[in-house]
Amino acid sequence: MKKLTLELGARSYPIVISPEAWNDASLSEQVRGRRALIISNETIAPLYLDRLKSCLSGAALEVELDQLILPDGEQYKTINTLEKIYDRLLESHYDRSCILIALGGGVIGDTVGFAAATYQRGVDFIQIPTTLLSQVDSSVGGKTAVNHPLGKNMIGAFYQPKGVYIDLTTLETLPEREFSAGMAEVIKYGLIRDNAFFGWLEQNIEAIMARDPDCLAETILVSCRTKAEVVSADETEQGLRAILNLGHTFGHAIEAAQHYKHWLHGEAVGAGMAMAARMSQNMGWLDSTDMTRIESLLSAANLPLEAPQDISAEKMRSLMSHDKKVTRGQLRLILLKQIGRAEVINDFDEEQLLAVL
Amino acid sequence: MKKLTLELGARSYPIVISPEAWNDASLSEQVRGRRALIISNETIAPLYLDRLKSCLSGAALEVELDQLILPDGEQYKTINTLEKIYDRLLESHYDRSCILIALGGGVIGDTVGFAAATYQRGVDFIQIPTTLLSQVDSSVGGKTAVNHPLGKNMIGAFYQPKGVYIDLTTLETLPEREFSAGMAEVIKYGLIRDNAFFGWLEQNIEAIMARDPDCLAETILVSCRTKAEVVSADETEQGLRAILNLGHTFGHAIEAAQHYKHWLHGEAVGAGMAMAARMSQNMGWLDSTDMTRIESLLSAANLPLEAPQDISAEKMRSLMSHDKKVTRGQLRLILLKQIGRAEVINDFDEEQLLAVL
Repeated sequence: MKKLTLELGARSYPIVISPEAWNDASLSEQVRGRRALIISNETIAPLYLDRLKSCLSGAALEVELDQLILPDGEQYKTINTLEKIYDRLLESHYDRSCILIALGGGVIGDTVGFAAATYQRGVDFIQIPTTLLSQVDSSVGGKTAVNHPLGKNMIGAFYQPKGVYIDLTTLETLPEREFSAGMAEVIKYGLIRDNAFFGWLEQNIEAIMARDPDCLAETILVSCRTKAEVVSADETEQGLRAILNLGHTFGHAIEAAQHYKHWLHGEAVGAGMAMAARMSQNMGWLDSTDMTRIESLLSAANLPLEAPQDISAEKMRSLMSHDKKVTRGQLRLILLKQIGRAEVINDFDEEQLLAVL
Repeated sequence: MKKLTLELGARSYPIVISPEAWNDASLSEQVRGRRALIISNETIAPLYLDRLKSCLSGAALEVELDQLILPDGEQYKTINTLEKIYDRLLESHYDRSCILIALGGGVIGDTVGFAAATYQRGVDFIQIPTTLLSQVDSSVGGKTAVNHPLGKNMIGAFYQPKGVYIDLTTLETLPEREFSAGMAEVIKYGLIRDNAFFGWLEQNIEAIMARDPDCLAETILVSCRTKAEVVSADETEQGLRAILNLGHTFGHAIEAAQHYKHWLHGEAVGAGMAMAARMSQNMGWLDSTDMTRIESLLSAANLPLEAPQDISAEKMRSLMSHDKKVTRGQLRLILLKQIGRAEVINDFDEEQLLAVL
C-alpha cells in the first residue's frame, strides 16, 4: 500500500495506490451516510462497477449508491454529456450533500469532476482512475474540463477531488494502445523534472511494457508524487504547473485537427513531446544524444514521434493559437533545457516552430 | 463617491457606488492593456454600452474592446447562452489573459460570471450592474450560475469578480416593476440582520420609490455593506451566508412553476419573504405587529404578498425539495426569529409549511 497526500491546506487529499485502494478507510469515510452517484462508461462499468459497489456498500456505511453509465470516448467529453449528468442529478433530487464518484479514465474523471465543480455550485467527488493515463496524470491535481469543437479542455474549472484511489489491477484489462498513451505522461515526468527517473524508465521500459506489477507500482508512485509536488506548489497554473503541459500544445492541435476521433490523447502528447524536443534541439539546448534517448524511449513505449502527415504545418500552427498557454496573443511553449528540466518559453522563432511542424 | 471593499484576502475587490463609478481608476487599471469583451443584452446595450466604452477607451489604456449582445430575460439564463459566449470567445481567439465585463442586470451578471469561471478554467471579470436588484445583491459576492429546467441557479460556481462598479444614474431608466423587484432584496437586508435599517426603510420608502438620489445612494450602500460582510464571513455558504436566501426557497419554487417567465425574481422573493414571515409567525417568533410592518413595507414597494393562486401547495412543496438548501434530503428554511434576525431552521412542522403554501 502506497499513500501520498496532495498538500493544499484544508483541501488536501489522499492518493492511495494499492490493489486494496477501493477498500481504504478514507474512502469509506467519505461516502459514509451519503447519497453517492457512481458515473462510469460502457466499457469500464461491466468490468469494475460491481466490485466497486461491493467495496462501498458495507452495511455499516449506510451509503445510498446509484450509477450513471455514459458512452465511452473522447468525443463524449462535451457540454452535452455534462447536461446528461445534471439532468440525472436533478431528476433524482440529489442535493449538495451528495458525492459523485468517477470510475473510468481521463474522460470520465475530467467530465465528472467538472460536473461536481458546477452542480449546485460544487459538490464533493472522488476519482477512481482505471487507465494508466488517468492514474498518473488526469485524476490528480484538480483540473476538470470538457472539450469545445474549437479546443480541448476549453471549458472547465480547477476543482479538487476528496481523494484518488488507484487499484493497479485495473490495468490488467487495459488495451495496449491505451497503456502506451499513459506512458507518454509517465515519460513526461522524467523529461520535465527528474533525470534519474528518466534513466530508470530507460532501464526498465521492457518490464513496464510487460506490466510487471512492481515496476508499475513504482512508475505510478513516482509519477503521482511528481504531479502532487507541482500542483501543491502552483494549483491554478500561475507558473510552475505549466511545465506539466510539455508536448500538450502540439498534442492538443493534433487532437483538434482530428476532431478528437483518431489518436488517443497520450499518443498525441507522445508525438507532441518529440516535437517539443526537436524544437529544443533547434534552440541549441538538447544535443543529438538527448534526442536519440528521448525518441528511443518514446518508441519503446510504442508512441508516435511525429504528427500525422495529413495535418499541414499551417493548420497545426493555427490550432496551437487556441491553446490555453496563449497569453496576450503570445503563444508560450514548454521546451526542454535538458532532460529533466523544462521551461516555459515566450521568445522563440516562428520559422523554427513551423519547421518542426 | 462611496467605496467598499469585499474582504477575501488575495481575492478582495472594490465595490464603487457613484455616478462616476465607471471612470474609477481601479477599473481602468483592471482593463489596461488587455482584450476586454463587454457582454450585455438588447435592452441595456442601446442605453449604456457607448458610455461604458468611452469610459474604458482612453488612448492611454490600450484596451482592445469588443462586445457581445445577448437577448434579454431570465429565460435566456441557460447553458445554451453560455455556449454562445464560449463560441464567441473561442472564435475570436480570446486567451486566458482576457477580461469579461458584465453590463446589465442579474441575468447578465450571473451568466457572464459563470462563463468567466469556466472559460479556460477561469478568466477575470468585472460586474457593471444596471438594475437595483443586481446592484444591491447579485453582482456582489461571487455567486454565478445559470438555470436548469428543474431549478434556478442549479449550475454554477462561486467565483469572485475583480470589481463591482455601480453607477446610480442607470436606475433612471429602470422600469417600475424591476425597481420594486430590487427593493425585495433591500428589504431582505433589514429583515435578516438590521432592525435599524428596516426602520429607516419604513420611514423613507416613499422617497426611495420616488428614486430620490440621496436615499437611493444610502439604500445601495447599506445593502452592499451588509452583503459584503456576510460574504466575507462565509464565502461558500457553509453557514451564515444561507440567511441571504430569506424568501428565496419559496420564491424559487414560484419561479420554477412559472418556468421563469412571468414574475421577476425579486417579485417572487417578495412573496417568498411574506410567506417565510407567516411561517415564522406560525412558529411563534413574530407577532401580528411584526407581520403588519413587514407586509406594509413590501406593499409600499409594490411587491406581492402571496404566491400566484394557480400554483397548488403540493406543487410548491415539490419544487422546494429541489432547492440547494436541501441537505441530506432535509429541507432547511430561512425564518425570522424577529425583524433583524434570521436563522436557518431544519426542524419545522410539514403541516405548518403546507398551510403557508
